[in-house]
Amino acid sequence: MDRQTLHRTLSPHGRSRVARRFRVFYFITVLSGLAAVIIETMNGLPAWLQILTAATNIAVAVLFCIEWALRIYVAPEEWLMEARRARLQYLTSPAGLIDLFAAAALPLGIAVGLRQDDQPLFCVLWVLKFVRYSAGLSMVGRVIRSELAALTSVLTVFSVVLLTSATLAHLLERERQAEAFGSIPAAMWWAIVTLTTTGYGDVVPLTVGGRIVGGFVMVSGIAVFAMWAGILANGFAVELRRRSFLRTWDLVSRVPLFADLGSTVIADIVHQLRVEEMRAGTVVFRRGQIGDRMYFIVSGRVRIELTPTPIELGEGAFFGEFALITGAPRSATVTIVENAELLVLDIADFRDLAVKRPELTQAIHAEADRRRATPVATPPSSSDGA
Amino acid sequence: MDRQTLHRTLSPHGRSRVARRFRVFYFITVLSGLAAVIIETMNGLPAWLQILTAATNIAVAVLFCIEWALRIYVAPEEWLMEARRARLQYLTSPAGLIDLFAAAALPLGIAVGLRQDDQPLFCVLWVLKFVRYSAGLSMVGRVIRSELAALTSVLTVFSVVLLTSATLAHLLERERQAEAFGSIPAAMWWAIVTLTTTGYGDVVPLTVGGRIVGGFVMVSGIAVFAMWAGILANGFAVELRRRSFLRTWDLVSRVPLFADLGSTVIADIVHQLRVEEMRAGTVVFRRGQIGDRMYFIVSGRVRIELTPTPIELGEGAFFGEFALITGAPRSATVTIVENAELLVLDIADFRDLAVKRPELTQAIHAEADRRRATPVATPPSSSDGA
Amino acid sequence: MDRQTLHRTLSPHGRSRVARRFRVFYFITVLSGLAAVIIETMNGLPAWLQILTAATNIAVAVLFCIEWALRIYVAPEEWLMEARRARLQYLTSPAGLIDLFAAAALPLGIAVGLRQDDQPLFCVLWVLKFVRYSAGLSMVGRVIRSELAALTSVLTVFSVVLLTSATLAHLLERERQAEAFGSIPAAMWWAIVTLTTTGYGDVVPLTVGGRIVGGFVMVSGIAVFAMWAGILANGFAVELRRRSFLRTWDLVSRVPLFADLGSTVIADIVHQLRVEEMRAGTVVFRRGQIGDRMYFIVSGRVRIELTPTPIELGEGAFFGEFALITGAPRSATVTIVENAELLVLDIADFRDLAVKRPELTQAIHAEADRRRATPVATPPSSSDGA
Amino acid sequence: MDRQTLHRTLSPHGRSRVARRFRVFYFITVLSGLAAVIIETMNGLPAWLQILTAATNIAVAVLFCIEWALRIYVAPEEWLMEARRARLQYLTSPAGLIDLFAAAALPLGIAVGLRQDDQPLFCVLWVLKFVRYSAGLSMVGRVIRSELAALTSVLTVFSVVLLTSATLAHLLERERQAEAFGSIPAAMWWAIVTLTTTGYGDVVPLTVGGRIVGGFVMVSGIAVFAMWAGILANGFAVELRRRSFLRTWDLVSRVPLFADLGSTVIADIVHQLRVEEMRAGTVVFRRGQIGDRMYFIVSGRVRIELTPTPIELGEGAFFGEFALITGAPRSATVTIVENAELLVLDIADFRDLAVKRPELTQAIHAEADRRRATPVATPPSSSDGA
Repeated sequence: MDRQTLHRTLSPHGRSRVARRFRVFYFITVLSGLAAVIIETMNGLPAWLQILTAATNIAVAVLFCIEWALRIYVAPEEWLMEARRARLQYLTSPAGLIDLFAAAALPLGIAVGLRQDDQPLFCVLWVLKFVRYSAGLSMVGRVIRSELAALTSVLTVFSVVLLTSATLAHLLERERQAEAFGSIPAAMWWAIVTLTTTGYGDVVPLTVGGRIVGGFVMVSGIAVFAMWAGILANGFAVELRRRSFLRTWDLVSRVPLFADLGSTVIADIVHQLRVEEMRAGTVVFRRGQIGDRMYFIVSGRVRIELTPTPIELGEGAFFGEFALITGAPRSATVTIVENAELLVLDIADFRDLAVKRPELTQAIHAEADRRRATPVATPPSSSDGA
Repeated sequence: MDRQTLHRTLSPHGRSRVARRFRVFYFITVLSGLAAVIIETMNGLPAWLQILTAATNIAVAVLFCIEWALRIYVAPEEWLMEARRARLQYLTSPAGLIDLFAAAALPLGIAVGLRQDDQPLFCVLWVLKFVRYSAGLSMVGRVIRSELAALTSVLTVFSVVLLTSATLAHLLERERQAEAFGSIPAAMWWAIVTLTTTGYGDVVPLTVGGRIVGGFVMVSGIAVFAMWAGILANGFAVELRRRSFLRTWDLVSRVPLFADLGSTVIADIVHQLRVEEMRAGTVVFRRGQIGDRMYFIVSGRVRIELTPTPIELGEGAFFGEFALITGAPRSATVTIVENAELLVLDIADFRDLAVKRPELTQAIHAEADRRRATPVATPPSSSDGA
Repeated sequence: MDRQTLHRTLSPHGRSRVARRFRVFYFITVLSGLAAVIIETMNGLPAWLQILTAATNIAVAVLFCIEWALRIYVAPEEWLMEARRARLQYLTSPAGLIDLFAAAALPLGIAVGLRQDDQPLFCVLWVLKFVRYSAGLSMVGRVIRSELAALTSVLTVFSVVLLTSATLAHLLERERQAEAFGSIPAAMWWAIVTLTTTGYGDVVPLTVGGRIVGGFVMVSGIAVFAMWAGILANGFAVELRRRSFLRTWDLVSRVPLFADLGSTVIADIVHQLRVEEMRAGTVVFRRGQIGDRMYFIVSGRVRIELTPTPIELGEGAFFGEFALITGAPRSATVTIVENAELLVLDIADFRDLAVKRPELTQAIHAEADRRRATPVATPPSSSDGA
Repeated sequence: MDRQTLHRTLSPHGRSRVARRFRVFYFITVLSGLAAVIIETMNGLPAWLQILTAATNIAVAVLFCIEWALRIYVAPEEWLMEARRARLQYLTSPAGLIDLFAAAALPLGIAVGLRQDDQPLFCVLWVLKFVRYSAGLSMVGRVIRSELAALTSVLTVFSVVLLTSATLAHLLERERQAEAFGSIPAAMWWAIVTLTTTGYGDVVPLTVGGRIVGGFVMVSGIAVFAMWAGILANGFAVELRRRSFLRTWDLVSRVPLFADLGSTVIADIVHQLRVEEMRAGTVVFRRGQIGDRMYFIVSGRVRIELTPTPIELGEGAFFGEFALITGAPRSATVTIVENAELLVLDIADFRDLAVKRPELTQAIHAEADRRRATPVATPPSSSDGA
């Protein structure tokens, strides 16, 4: 296997069959590693289970060492630059550091001189491997970064309430509960348990004054929480719009129908299309269902189960428009025959576009008529320039 | 009763009088079935109540068996295809599986060999019948599906915090609380109770280090929660707009006034109309109230209580525009005389449209003048082509 | 005092000095009535306090009876129709029922035959008087009504989770905790305490299975909560925009500057103005502050503290534009001299409008130049048609 | 140091090197003051620590007295008016009052006659110094003010539920739990702990009726919370848009490229640019990364690490456009060499603009071509008028 193939297999976004299988194997590895670490801490395990978990532990650690070495080897493919700089860049990137840490967790536990039982404890951080593979997490990061100023001001409010209420509770309750409210640090434990509305109940104000302070702290708690939710709601709205726009833009121009209509129409429709990936074998819709969207094929192939002979459509074709135009139920079941990326146009947007961009829906009508006229539909990209 | 009538009666969206009555009966059946199952588990019930609940249980189970059979019988009406395929499709659809399970719950409990008392316990899942009938639930499903990537990344953050904090708490607290924090699985119980801010208080950190970890876990808990709320808020905003657009679009073209104005005006106004269904006998508004909306009748009839003679309006007519134009209170009470679907135009949008689409408000003015001029108002649809 | 004056005084929205004072007195009455009812339930009160609270109670109840009678008397003013129908309408309206109930609460407690101590307990519902006077509450009502379908689907999810988890916990925990989980109704108490993340800790699962169920219930709890928040966030966004638009629209046309510019400009600017009410004596802004908004006077008078002679502006005038145009700090302090309604234009929108609607900012510039040229500024409405 | 320099150093927004260093020193002062106050309340401290905290306490208090005097001295610089009025304005402003209180906290504790140990307790309010310096807090304030009506209506709902449920629980539970539910004030403690879903568990309803009331209170609690979050989400969305618009507007006109395109283009682009401040040494992006944004330099200088000779760009120049146009990875690493303010244009908006405002992207293309043609790129502002 050459370096480039290896890189595509190891990449979190690899789309080949091997890459997909590797990811399944990889996730099972991480999960069994974590399970072994967690189970190992339980007392009174039978001997065979102790041996099994220890063995799993070591095996997973070895695999992560190998993975780290391989990723150093393929780094130049990822960063598209000369080998030495690419490898340095990988080693110092967050992903590289997570991989290094995963590889070093078990030896580190031994080196640091932990008790025998505790040596695998660092391996709990193998959970970070999921972070490294999570596509949506970069979005969460972007949102938090862009709303940071607002979020930290709410944190300031949080600390002011925390400190003030701990001091007041300390003053009001220390006579009756010398241990729990005897100092401000002690009272802060009560304050944070109350302000987050966790409410363990291990420390509870007993005086009337302390309870009034407690009531205010609880209400402030839900207010702080609500502010946080409000800020983040706004941030996600902006970011999700941005993502969907970018992803769609990359694909829209690959559909000949849109490409022919010129950039102004594309700029309009790109806000209304959504990307969906479907694997071979998925049923897109069934005969007799209500039709509420149509599909454009960016890559892959689908089969339309027409009687007597089903037809197949490939890149650049579209389907499902008939139910949108007529309002009748789906006239045929459609199945994916080759992993596909589809652009989805909702009926609501289809109708909106029909008024704002009549040239688009006319083109769809024309193509649909043409297809129904010919005995076997061929994707427009493979026929004349349409 | 032929198959088609039966289908309309059984359908969750049936709008005939029989269908409505059937739904009321059906919900009572589900509720009494559930009540019987729940009550049956209580100890020390008097003998008559034990017999009553057991009987209810069996009766409801029998009804669900009959219902399932009937739904198989009417499936071709629903799926609009040849009988055998339609029935197969029903049997494998989520709704069909819920119905099957509801029918089989009681026999299953016996077959599986549960203790005598526990045999009806599967019947608790009769609650799924509500899910099957809930119109809004498909919306919740769509929102969750479309925001899935973002929601799972937050779930990843959730698991990282959960696992890390459980490990830290295990390390810090195990000396003092050997039972509650003696292993990571044990510590995870504390971690999840704390991270969701439930805070039972059965396990509470006692060391200073454990409490600091606890404080961070609580704050992370409300942050995770806030992120989730933020993502969903955005999802619902998009989906609710889409729904309302679709529903309105279907109805708007049935009102002659709009149909005459052409599709560009419709595309504008459709975003500002809202559908309301009202049952016979409902008072739409009363004389003397402040008028903040006008109504277009899609179906049904209303009575305007004018003195000396009230008038009735039917499909295609509109009312309530006078208070919007003049700002005076409502000059007459309006009551529904036949189940009606109304399109509602809010005063805010009416004013907005008056500037952007003067032709629409002019048409409303003209029709209003015409109506006031004739002794008995007739719906425009029944007069000339207006 | 004639019926009309009395009506204006009693109305929750009355804006005269007497109406304002009446409202203050009214709120104090409600609060002291509530305080009396609450304090009365405490044990070991000194005799004088018992007499005081009982007296307050009776006095407030008498006042509410008088109020109810007066409101019946003035009803025709409110509903603008013949006396008998207007009074009937008041008596059956929600506000009328709250007033009736407030008047009848104390006698009802006696009539129903409660224990001596408990007779005033119905008076706790005097708190509804606040609901009746709360302007924003109708908004909360509108939002909930318009999002009802979505909110009830989430409630369906809530009940499914509640019932399923109670049944599972009952099965898993009943051996170890016969009392707390012995029947499904008993287990539902645990389930609701957990699903709302309240977590009293009085009932806690002890088996491993029960704890896993508990963990899922907690996470579902925050998910349900988040969905609810998401739906409501969207509802409030729509409703708040609508409100602000309506209120501004009513006032914008009273400002000559806007009226002269024609309805298309108004339709644009109305989305960007915000209404603020200020009482006499309020300082709008101070000399030296950064200027981030300008003001249009709808009603009332303001004084601009220029040296040597301050000037006064009245209806239709505007001020604060100088700092927006030049970016310099405020050049004079401005104080309200007569209760005023102001339309506020934010600097962000001012700049936006300067590009989209240059005629508006030109008119503002022209008027500003004219005013600075004349020794004493007069509101444009009282000068020529500008 | 003259008064103006001193003012710039003390100002929370001062951007000079001295001002930055002063802020770091200032925050350390506040933090150590707070730490001293908190630690002082703990029992059994060693003597040396008691002396250290007391000394820190006094030192910080003295520093705050000096700070207050200095701020009075520099007030005329801040308010830009004659000295006496400016100082009066500072003394009565919120910031001035916080500073006064911070200076007076320790003497006040002694003057008020607290116990020896408690004298420093007022110093807890030094935490307000963070509020005074928090930029985002004014935003939180604006949002709460603008949504006040809606937030208070939710608070009304909150009090109605609180009072009603406390009364009901008092009626239902007082027989079995005379102490916890014996009076309405006592029952309100349970009600608020439950309504905020804190759930200490110190008081728990035991009767069936009380538990049903409790269930409703919990569900109302999360509903109230959700409403609050919903209202605030909307408020933050509006306010964040406003902020970002204002900040960008001030900077956009300083970039010659935009200034040349005229005000209509600026009004469009200003909604799509975002400001980022970066300190010297920051890496803006690295060679080989995916390019998803381009940058315009408002102030400061950057170095583009081209081989063989890196080039520097200053005010008015832009960079990073190449990866956006071609879709290739970044061709060079870019580092800040002098504290810079950058305007960031996201790839999503760049593409949107390319269609809506072709003249802008053409200008970018032209400038990019020109720059690549000349051996050493010079910022366009220093070359011809382009």
